[in-house]
Amino acid sequence: MADEAPFQFLHNEVIQYIYKTAESGETENGRNITRLENMGFRVGQGLIERLTKDTARFKDELDIMKFICKDFWTCVFKKQIDNLRTNHQGIYVLQDNKFRLLSQLSAGNQYMEHAPKYLAFSCGLVRGGLSNLGVKSIVTAEVSVMPACKFQVMIQKM
Amino acid sequence: MADEAPFQFLHNEVIQYIYKTAESGETENGRNITRLENMGFRVGQGLIERLTKDTARFKDELDIMKFICKDFWTCVFKKQIDNLRTNHQGIYVLQDNKFRLLSQLSAGNQYMEHAPKYLAFSCGLVRGGLSNLGVKSIVTAEVSVMPACKFQVMIQKM
Repeated sequence: MADEAPFQFLHNEVIQYIYKTAESGETENGRNITRLENMGFRVGQGLIERLTKDTARFKDELDIMKFICKDFWTCVFKKQIDNLRTNHQGIYVLQDNKFRLLSQLSAGNQYMEHAPKYLAFSCGLVRGGLSNLGVKSIVTAEVSVMPACKFQVMIQKM
Repeated sequence: MADEAPFQFLHNEVIQYIYKTAESGETENGRNITRLENMGFRVGQGLIERLTKDTARFKDELDIMKFICKDFWTCVFKKQIDNLRTNHQGIYVLQDNKFRLLSQLSAGNQYMEHAPKYLAFSCGLVRGGLSNLGVKSIVTAEVSVMPACKFQVMIQKM
């Protein structure tokens, strides 16, 4: 329980710092999301490099996605992705039924509007991890009922 | 090894973000250090609250310091402080012979000037942890040989 706490608390502080130092307004909110996403991207790049140092070569895209759902997710969030689905045409949906970075937020609907800023970093995390494995992607996230959430990965064919 | 990696990478990104968004210059460097220290303070406050939830009451100041050196340090850095000394008059020196947030830096002297920004967050961490246990302090850090470092805690009598 306390294992991932330093990361969680730091993540919260980063969100607060970015939002506090920036100007307010619609455009700025978008920019803050991008900042968080970029930060996640670089962390994801670094992490995947360390995690795959001694792993065998990946067979295919699905094999890579499974690695993200298991090893990568466990490293950051101390649990695996609960469900992975794909249309076999480059779209993957990763469902986490108890996403750690949302578990501090109350489940009320009034907090739903804050969800995007708690998800941006992790979208970047996945995109960065995949990018370092040679897979270019667009990653988005949505919350249906807190603290469950879905990450949608769209692979960009090169 | 990979266990504390997400925290480490995020910590590095935070330093880079803070230094990148701020203006350059002497004063600004001081301000960035303060920002990092404050961020650490709040993370320390949150962490200690979670860690001490089910612990027995502390006997005295030394007992608190031991908790910081063992449980608190292990939670964040996956190792204990290697050496704790005190003059029994409110000064404590915590030595970590292989401080994780410095272990990515090369040991050359030319990198010594960058050490303060890698230590500020952790100084705040200790100060925040102590503060939530009712101990007001000033925490500074110094590096003699990388990646070993010493944190000096001066208790402020109230």
